[in-house]
Amino acid sequence: MKSPIAGIFCPNPVPLDDAGRINEPELRRYIDWLIDRGIHGIYANGSAGEFLRFSLQERRRICQIICEQCRGRVPVLAGATENNVREVIESCELYHAYGARAVALLPPIYYKLSQASVFEYFREIARNSPIDVTLYNIPLFCPPIEVQTIQRLALEHRNIIGLKDSSGDMSYLARVIAAIRPTRPEFTLLSGWEAALAPAMLLGADGGTHASSGAVPELTRRLYDLCVTRRWDEAVHLQLRLIEFFDIMVYAADFPEGLRAAVEIRGIKLGKSRQPANFDRTRLTESLRCVMADFGLADAPTTCTTRTSGFAGQGVDLSPDVTLEVTSAVIAEMKRKGLL
Amino acid sequence: MKSPIAGIFCPNPVPLDDAGRINEPELRRYIDWLIDRGIHGIYANGSAGEFLRFSLQERRRICQIICEQCRGRVPVLAGATENNVREVIESCELYHAYGARAVALLPPIYYKLSQASVFEYFREIARNSPIDVTLYNIPLFCPPIEVQTIQRLALEHRNIIGLKDSSGDMSYLARVIAAIRPTRPEFTLLSGWEAALAPAMLLGADGGTHASSGAVPELTRRLYDLCVTRRWDEAVHLQLRLIEFFDIMVYAADFPEGLRAAVEIRGIKLGKSRQPANFDRTRLTESLRCVMADFGLADAPTTCTTRTSGFAGQGVDLSPDVTLEVTSAVIAEMKRKGLL
Amino acid sequence: MKSPIAGIFCPNPVPLDDAGRINEPELRRYIDWLIDRGIHGIYANGSAGEFLRFSLQERRRICQIICEQCRGRVPVLAGATENNVREVIESCELYHAYGARAVALLPPIYYKLSQASVFEYFREIARNSPIDVTLYNIPLFCPPIEVQTIQRLALEHRNIIGLKDSSGDMSYLARVIAAIRPTRPEFTLLSGWEAALAPAMLLGADGGTHASSGAVPELTRRLYDLCVTRRWDEAVHLQLRLIEFFDIMVYAADFPEGLRAAVEIRGIKLGKSRQPANFDRTRLTESLRCVMADFGLADAPTTCTTRTSGFAGQGVDLSPDVTLEVTSAVIAEMKRKGLL
Amino acid sequence: MKSPIAGIFCPNPVPLDDAGRINEPELRRYIDWLIDRGIHGIYANGSAGEFLRFSLQERRRICQIICEQCRGRVPVLAGATENNVREVIESCELYHAYGARAVALLPPIYYKLSQASVFEYFREIARNSPIDVTLYNIPLFCPPIEVQTIQRLALEHRNIIGLKDSSGDMSYLARVIAAIRPTRPEFTLLSGWEAALAPAMLLGADGGTHASSGAVPELTRRLYDLCVTRRWDEAVHLQLRLIEFFDIMVYAADFPEGLRAAVEIRGIKLGKSRQPANFDRTRLTESLRCVMADFGLADAPTTCTTRTSGFAGQGVDLSPDVTLEVTSAVIAEMKRKGLL
Repeated sequence: MKSPIAGIFCPNPVPLDDAGRINEPELRRYIDWLIDRGIHGIYANGSAGEFLRFSLQERRRICQIICEQCRGRVPVLAGATENNVREVIESCELYHAYGARAVALLPPIYYKLSQASVFEYFREIARNSPIDVTLYNIPLFCPPIEVQTIQRLALEHRNIIGLKDSSGDMSYLARVIAAIRPTRPEFTLLSGWEAALAPAMLLGADGGTHASSGAVPELTRRLYDLCVTRRWDEAVHLQLRLIEFFDIMVYAADFPEGLRAAVEIRGIKLGKSRQPANFDRTRLTESLRCVMADFGLADAPTTCTTRTSGFAGQGVDLSPDVTLEVTSAVIAEMKRKGLL
Repeated sequence: MKSPIAGIFCPNPVPLDDAGRINEPELRRYIDWLIDRGIHGIYANGSAGEFLRFSLQERRRICQIICEQCRGRVPVLAGATENNVREVIESCELYHAYGARAVALLPPIYYKLSQASVFEYFREIARNSPIDVTLYNIPLFCPPIEVQTIQRLALEHRNIIGLKDSSGDMSYLARVIAAIRPTRPEFTLLSGWEAALAPAMLLGADGGTHASSGAVPELTRRLYDLCVTRRWDEAVHLQLRLIEFFDIMVYAADFPEGLRAAVEIRGIKLGKSRQPANFDRTRLTESLRCVMADFGLADAPTTCTTRTSGFAGQGVDLSPDVTLEVTSAVIAEMKRKGLL
Repeated sequence: MKSPIAGIFCPNPVPLDDAGRINEPELRRYIDWLIDRGIHGIYANGSAGEFLRFSLQERRRICQIICEQCRGRVPVLAGATENNVREVIESCELYHAYGARAVALLPPIYYKLSQASVFEYFREIARNSPIDVTLYNIPLFCPPIEVQTIQRLALEHRNIIGLKDSSGDMSYLARVIAAIRPTRPEFTLLSGWEAALAPAMLLGADGGTHASSGAVPELTRRLYDLCVTRRWDEAVHLQLRLIEFFDIMVYAADFPEGLRAAVEIRGIKLGKSRQPANFDRTRLTESLRCVMADFGLADAPTTCTTRTSGFAGQGVDLSPDVTLEVTSAVIAEMKRKGLL
Repeated sequence: MKSPIAGIFCPNPVPLDDAGRINEPELRRYIDWLIDRGIHGIYANGSAGEFLRFSLQERRRICQIICEQCRGRVPVLAGATENNVREVIESCELYHAYGARAVALLPPIYYKLSQASVFEYFREIARNSPIDVTLYNIPLFCPPIEVQTIQRLALEHRNIIGLKDSSGDMSYLARVIAAIRPTRPEFTLLSGWEAALAPAMLLGADGGTHASSGAVPELTRRLYDLCVTRRWDEAVHLQLRLIEFFDIMVYAADFPEGLRAAVEIRGIKLGKSRQPANFDRTRLTESLRCVMADFGLADAPTTCTTRTSGFAGQGVDLSPDVTLEVTSAVIAEMKRKGLL
């Protein structure tokens, strides 16, 4: 039986070398670094991974490298969105061969589509894919996937196994759960909205594909652990403390520059993004360092002002003992839910 | 010391007589009916109460009747949004004299306003109001109240005591909490988004002003009780079961026709709305009756199809014993938080 | 036979005295000033006139003063949007008695409404109004009035005589014209979007209710005259020159502060707005003076930088001779269209 | 000296064979068919051409075929939007070698970008492209290109020679013209919004890239000719008559299915779209045939109801004599503007 998709799946940025090509050794090192810090899976070729800024061949190579590097340790959720159904299915076949656990698929980008067409699109792929499919709802950038569309797809296609929702809309998530779980109790729901993991997990989400996990995997993982063990007060406390980091990471420059800067602070060499950009990189990095220092994950630059959030200066206990304790509780909980 | 604002505040529709005037006896009977069923307060002249479809004089009379009828039992949150600062302040003075606990204020409607002007608007009112003020964020209909605007207002004006948020955006709510609570821990946050009370209370909201409480106060109250006693699994279960009711109530006809139909099912005579409308009232009522029957709050019409939500047919235990048990827990929790 | 509604209808701001009350003598002086500068009618209680920031009684008084002051010279289009159908119809009766030519009506503000309800709303008013009705589409602030709704209303109600469109969407305007004019050739269409009067009139609009006409009526009138006489090259040249003025007037501060500042530059005393605001009034006024000086309608402050628009420094010939010439052509054209 | 870009550039759909591959002979026949019917140029790989549903290699091959087929007759504007700057520049080089007149470039799709980054993106391409660049603004699907961004790009880069605007916003177009033309009078502006060609040309646009020209090139061309010869009354009459066709083509099914159906009515075999879809194809085709029959460009099916638009049944005179007359006037006008 296939493993369920649950926990934190990291939508990792891809390191580039000086010539702007995929830096394979650094990518492999980065994957190891993430696994060492507790992420449950890798979400290859996600939005945070700038999948659209690579060529088809590069996307496939990225997925291959990641599958190779992960194998035997954590599952890979492979972004397989391409320009047309034929290329999507080819990617599904390839990623299946590489050993990915499932693919994640946006509706067709750019054009506006009716829900009937969104349904047809996913149906054609589901019929032809050798690998399990998760839907990816991100109405900010793509046609939305409405609840009834998900419901029809989930009823007809057992290999459509889940949804990643980056709408941030808890009502939508609640509707999906109320509509799908009665007939597909194992249907996976992953949150893609940084600031709402705890509420999403309260409602029934199984985890998230949060960009933050590429930079501060210890914290994203801790937040997940607190949620999955239903230590809600601590979870909310951490969720609120992370807001400031999320906001700088997402809004201080064009996404995903903030994420890239935060990852580099952790010692991963990402190189220059393929997207020309113009912003105050030094200032962005300093802001991130100040917040990350608060969590003990970076040295504080001297420029940090005293934090006003009221949550500052309260270190998160990431000591092995506490982690062990939480982890044990997580394992027990996951066993209880039949996920382990 | 003034009582805190917490729990379920009902934004009641206003009964009208055959001539289209306020039906005062029925309004008084309705207020009693709501209080008997456990709502914690009345939110007079809210959006669900169609405040804009009354004249200024009528709005003031509605608030007066409600304050008279509530006095000594539950607090009144009085919607005091008017066309200009002068009329708002006059209403604040009146509602203070009537004994309302606080007013709720939208930003100026219709025009687009900068945050600087939204700030100035609330500042001028706060400086001149004899009654506590709560802000009302509903970006669907009004200029939004951004987090930094709330932060400045909360720091400068102790009589701005809370925010009702009808954005449904949990990230926004989390940002408000992270920004305001460290310096104003008692700052009240009320959810105005039906389908997200449980997630909002998880993050730290103190209750909600949900339209549903005008029709099924037993259920809204139960949901609140489960949240405030941190019985999250049961809360989420009920939250998900209520989605279908919320959706019919809000989306099956122009709001608040669905609410009005549901209230009438409960035996309150609301009369004809002031807004001409054209929709299938019979069908709306039947849909609502089917869902409400599921909760034991209406007789099921023969037209009800078998429910597909998976949550249908699982009655909510509203027996006195269970209610007592939950209520005791609520009281304990509220005492712990210093709210009682 | 009633006069058609065509030309420039000025949505005038309302002068206030030091106590914040309607400054009746200055309002009367302002109406005369506008008529002297060539506007074809007054649009009382428009958005630019901040109708929502007055009380019902004040709006009615404003309309009464304007009708009194205009009588025998130019027609009055009276904004009669109120909170419910009953008050709207009362205003229709009053404005009819005051001698207004027609009322202009928004769909109900604030709430979202289906087109069926928008239709019902206008139908009920049309059935009961003694005065002709024009519809007012401004989807930025209100439920839109879709083409088919207008079509049904125009077919059923001869006293619905026109539409003011502030969407700025030429495709919408083209659709309305294609849908309505074949059966209602006299149906009036007024542009409410400053920067698109010339394109709108090319398509078939009969004029506009442009805020700019409150501050620079000579120019708005000139633009109209050039359009109506089909001197399109000159019209477009002036339209493009006016863009900068429009943009400062509309976007440099919360609307209608820019309009109010421009009107004050012309010597009308508007007093302080009822909306608390916080912006650099001096800078706004200087920017407006620089642009208005370019047209010979203000003295240039020394702070004006050299204009870069390429259109600067080319005075519009507003000399009596040229005006006479254009006016004669306008009269000929209007006679040809049966408007005179 | 290079030829200016003016007139109607057809964003042609690409015929596919039964295996879903590019049908090269039919594509070549279609290009000839379009040129024979008067279009001024081909816009290869546009949105209507479903560029995103082809692979990079296919897009390049499409452009090569079109350039080969057009050479010596009409210029090619080549859509060169790719996933990253490197691939865009490679396409620029290729399309230059193929003999295209210029490339058309969207801002990066999918992600939200600041204007600073949009500027950097186009700057890097302009610095490295051997072929002239036109910008493509379509805020419905991509980050917008704001007026000041265009202004900076136009000032710094002489090889950025124009803008195609598919916003449909005449105020935006007017702002662009007012901002750019004083220093770059030859800067090309093409309308991409079907229903607004006449207003756009009134303001100063040089033509359009309208999807309709792929199906009814005679009419799009006629509309252009009437505009460019300033026969505005006839132009508007035709523009209004075309609204119904535009609306069915664009809104009756997911775009560009309506266009594809209309092209097939004309006898071009497009094959099956790569996008799975589910709609009533027969009904779409019948609706289109009814409208096209009105213009004498299709046989009317018996299902056509009597047209209600008031414009129906008035054939457009496409006889050689009238066409010659108009064409002569166009040539004279274009010579006057230095375009010939």
